[in-house]
Amino acid sequence: MCGIVGYIGMEEAAPFLLHGLQRLEYRGYDSAGVAVYNETGLHVVKSKGRLSVLEGILEGGAKLPGSVGIGHTRWATHGAPSDVNSHPQVSDGGKFAVVHNGIIENYLELKNHLLRRGVEFVSDTDTEVVAQMLEYYYHDDVLAAIQKVIDRVEGSYALGIICADCPEKIFAVRKDSPLIVGVGRGENFIASDIPAILSKTRDIYRLKDQEIAVLTRNSIEFWNSDRERIEKQSEHIEWDISAAEKGGYEHFMMKEICEQPEALRKTISPRIRDGHIVLDDIELTAEQIRNIDKVFIVACGTAYHVGVVAKYAFEKLLKIPMEVDVASEFRYRSPIINDRTLVIIISQSGETADTLAALRESKKRGARVLSIVNVVGSTIANESDDVLYTWAGPEIAVASTKAYSTQLAVIYMIVLYMAEQLHNISEQELQAYIEELQRLPEFVAACLTDKETIQYFASKYFNAKDMYFIGRNVDYAASLEASLKLKEISYIHSEAYTAGELKHGPISLIEDGTLVIAICTYDKLFDKMMSNVKEVKARGAVVLGITTQQKKEAVSQEADYSFCVPKISDFMLPSLSIIPLQLFAYYVASMKGCDIDKPRNLAKSVTVE
Amino acid sequence: MCGIVGYIGMEEAAPFLLHGLQRLEYRGYDSAGVAVYNETGLHVVKSKGRLSVLEGILEGGAKLPGSVGIGHTRWATHGAPSDVNSHPQVSDGGKFAVVHNGIIENYLELKNHLLRRGVEFVSDTDTEVVAQMLEYYYHDDVLAAIQKVIDRVEGSYALGIICADCPEKIFAVRKDSPLIVGVGRGENFIASDIPAILSKTRDIYRLKDQEIAVLTRNSIEFWNSDRERIEKQSEHIEWDISAAEKGGYEHFMMKEICEQPEALRKTISPRIRDGHIVLDDIELTAEQIRNIDKVFIVACGTAYHVGVVAKYAFEKLLKIPMEVDVASEFRYRSPIINDRTLVIIISQSGETADTLAALRESKKRGARVLSIVNVVGSTIANESDDVLYTWAGPEIAVASTKAYSTQLAVIYMIVLYMAEQLHNISEQELQAYIEELQRLPEFVAACLTDKETIQYFASKYFNAKDMYFIGRNVDYAASLEASLKLKEISYIHSEAYTAGELKHGPISLIEDGTLVIAICTYDKLFDKMMSNVKEVKARGAVVLGITTQQKKEAVSQEADYSFCVPKISDFMLPSLSIIPLQLFAYYVASMKGCDIDKPRNLAKSVTVE
Repeated sequence: MCGIVGYIGMEEAAPFLLHGLQRLEYRGYDSAGVAVYNETGLHVVKSKGRLSVLEGILEGGAKLPGSVGIGHTRWATHGAPSDVNSHPQVSDGGKFAVVHNGIIENYLELKNHLLRRGVEFVSDTDTEVVAQMLEYYYHDDVLAAIQKVIDRVEGSYALGIICADCPEKIFAVRKDSPLIVGVGRGENFIASDIPAILSKTRDIYRLKDQEIAVLTRNSIEFWNSDRERIEKQSEHIEWDISAAEKGGYEHFMMKEICEQPEALRKTISPRIRDGHIVLDDIELTAEQIRNIDKVFIVACGTAYHVGVVAKYAFEKLLKIPMEVDVASEFRYRSPIINDRTLVIIISQSGETADTLAALRESKKRGARVLSIVNVVGSTIANESDDVLYTWAGPEIAVASTKAYSTQLAVIYMIVLYMAEQLHNISEQELQAYIEELQRLPEFVAACLTDKETIQYFASKYFNAKDMYFIGRNVDYAASLEASLKLKEISYIHSEAYTAGELKHGPISLIEDGTLVIAICTYDKLFDKMMSNVKEVKARGAVVLGITTQQKKEAVSQEADYSFCVPKISDFMLPSLSIIPLQLFAYYVASMKGCDIDKPRNLAKSVTVE
Repeated sequence: MCGIVGYIGMEEAAPFLLHGLQRLEYRGYDSAGVAVYNETGLHVVKSKGRLSVLEGILEGGAKLPGSVGIGHTRWATHGAPSDVNSHPQVSDGGKFAVVHNGIIENYLELKNHLLRRGVEFVSDTDTEVVAQMLEYYYHDDVLAAIQKVIDRVEGSYALGIICADCPEKIFAVRKDSPLIVGVGRGENFIASDIPAILSKTRDIYRLKDQEIAVLTRNSIEFWNSDRERIEKQSEHIEWDISAAEKGGYEHFMMKEICEQPEALRKTISPRIRDGHIVLDDIELTAEQIRNIDKVFIVACGTAYHVGVVAKYAFEKLLKIPMEVDVASEFRYRSPIINDRTLVIIISQSGETADTLAALRESKKRGARVLSIVNVVGSTIANESDDVLYTWAGPEIAVASTKAYSTQLAVIYMIVLYMAEQLHNISEQELQAYIEELQRLPEFVAACLTDKETIQYFASKYFNAKDMYFIGRNVDYAASLEASLKLKEISYIHSEAYTAGELKHGPISLIEDGTLVIAICTYDKLFDKMMSNVKEVKARGAVVLGITTQQKKEAVSQEADYSFCVPKISDFMLPSLSIIPLQLFAYYVASMKGCDIDKPRNLAKSVTVE
């Protein structure tokens, strides 16, 4: 996830680009850069770090005259945050400058192709491949070059392009990453998101996948993927700036909940090729995997709950003993670790202090460390033996949602990858799992369609003082996360229990009207869960059952309310059952009037112990 | 723990003995029996099962005429519940009948001594040894024989004795097990506890250790251990029956809290000999221990929390990986178990359904199963490869206290035993640990002396709706149990958190006046705990700190209230820190007017899944 902005008009481009990028900084803040064309040619200035660093260098834009330009604020995916990896990326011959949001999945193949033909690369980014290809395919027709490039790249992209040979134009194209075109008077704009241009115009076009826009000062043309001119309808924006930053959502949390299908697709799809999991980013051979006799997952908070799900998947498919521990405990007890231990570290920010300390302790004791991190180039990523990134984009809301979902997806991929390497799984099973994994974004999207049911349920119970989540096996793992979400943002004291433990103590808390949320998606223990639902109902509880379509009837007979998610293999169930419960936490907090994105006492990235 | 009663007078003994035993059935219900002397000699009738079985056999006592007799209701320790192991135990020659409460620790040595001299034994009990020794040492002077026996036995005992040669007398003696003598008109009584005789008299004598009482119809004589006659003061009882059954306490729970030092002594002391842990009850050779590469502890509720403590002890002293799991989850996931796995099963009742199922599953997969159980002859005890009993006596209150404490003690002994067998520990360290273990009853007693501080604190906060317990490492393990106690009996929603996880979510629940109980006994993380205390204080929490004497000052500077327990080795700390928090749960529930011994929705022994 990155931010793109572009300007062509009569005024100075650089000051406006910096202003626009400011409004997009929520989309990434690893580095920033601008390319401006003026009478002396195409000039690129970029710098690692927050936008303010670039603003300093450009003296607010004054240092870079010119009225055509593109700008970028980066959330690193390929290549660590650095000056050279910052955007815009410029082609070898200096003709093209490109800003990009998204991931070119086949960039390595394309890069090798160009390298063999003598093209020289300077960065580690997938974006540079786009710039180089544009120049490689360019023969006096930019539109034709763009067409050739988008025919060849796989993955997602929103691209802003300027070409030294056509200094009076900006080109833009997108697929699976957002891009809009803004209409001004004697000036036009492109941007990843509306807030970047809202100070200049409220009239926009939304580009569809593979539509190309060509902007001049006084015109905007659109072309489809068959190089036919098309007409598009513009749209007038009524929002204010703050709503616009959240993409029209009231809170980042809801925005991020709804981004989960996209985040999952970005995380999963580049790693599936020809029906196999391909983990280019890491080196873990079959022999190395066979050498592992113990896996630890170490994390904090929500990421720890990913570990709880992972344990079921690891022990089921890999038969490798796994222990999951919270980082603040792990580092101070005496876990038995040696060079046959794999430690998996999970952290959204890659800077969580306790988790980082656990990583260092594990390495000291000889373990191999694989981390699952959302922020490229973060300390945890840098210090790990291997890193698998979740390509969820920046998570702004303190309560994690899309990070959780993408971390789970990475776990599934690790497990399937290792299972195949170990021959623990038949080709047929593998294919079935991979197919489900590819459909995960679609299943999650399906869970998001019926928000009203959850909103209605929340409206009836948002005043509850206490709530209990129960489940067994993977449903218990999801309960832990569901309970934490509610706690974090609604300040309701909720607790997750393995359903079987209720009668050994906590059931004494159930009285008339107590709210119990029973996750009953796990088929094998469905009947036992129904017994537990009856137990709490008999003590007066009100029950919301989360289940799969297949069990809908059975659950609605026992529970007061129910919500269905699609059916999927056991170990992936938490990816679906969590969705309605993220929504539930959100709506409850919203009805209570809580500060959803910034709950009291909490910070996003916990860099203290 | 067993119940003893004795009668000598003008009326029929048997009906009264049955009545008295009824009032003592809370002390044990594995089997019952009576011995009555009449003109045709000494008659013993006894039967496995509840007292009602015996009552049926005796037709309420009518079948067994005679006005001198002793009776017993049994809580099995040595030897499974069976007819032959029931009391009274009779000597080989039929001269002596004995009822016994307590444990003769050196009974095996004494039994072998007698076996070599041709005495024939019929039962597995330690009590039969007493009967046989009495006859062996008897030369026309019962008092002299008793004197010789108590010189030779080690352990605890309350004994009621009748001798066929002295049919007009009952003898009684005790050490570390309770026994009282009741004074009637033309009739006298002995009993383990007052309720047994309260229908007949309210005037009693309390026997001190090793004092011998000799009762006839019209006289009571007392002798000390030097065979000197002594005078004793009688006492008039004002209590009603229900208070009497609880030993003067308002609830069984408080009685059982206060019984912990005694229960610990009974559980620990027979298993320490010459400065080594001796686990006669199990077969676990050094080679077998070396063969173990993984330990699981499987249990429910409070017993599960014992497992959480155990993990620290096992990994610290034994370097064997251990996993702790709740039984209802363990049996349905795919834990990796084979013939090198030791599964430790913990259950007070020995009948917990989920735990039993986990045991069977483990055995099926080839694991060796060692159980820690309080009820001799229970199903879990019967089906395990090895059993270590907690000799806590019957636990009546639903909320477990003395079972938890004695289960912990057994864990410590297993760990020290295995560490010595594996040579993982120096002789010096072992001695230091064993010395502490022997002093554990005394340390626990010390924690019980200052009930007022806890009562005062409870009086200030019993109206709280939510409470949080925090700790790190073993202090976290104790937090889990402390939180469960509060939940079970006071219905306050409390939750235990590892202190380091607070900032990853739950700290959002802390607001002005929220009660946080911080267990800070673990030296190594004391400073970090103090930081966490400051964090919650800064958000308005009221903090009760539980700490050791050494850290008293530091804690009182930060916390609003503090309570100190003695200092002991790390892994045993939960045995002490839990004591004030059992009291806290008790007082809070008492002030809220809850039904402490029988909290809503809960049953003592969960024999359903």
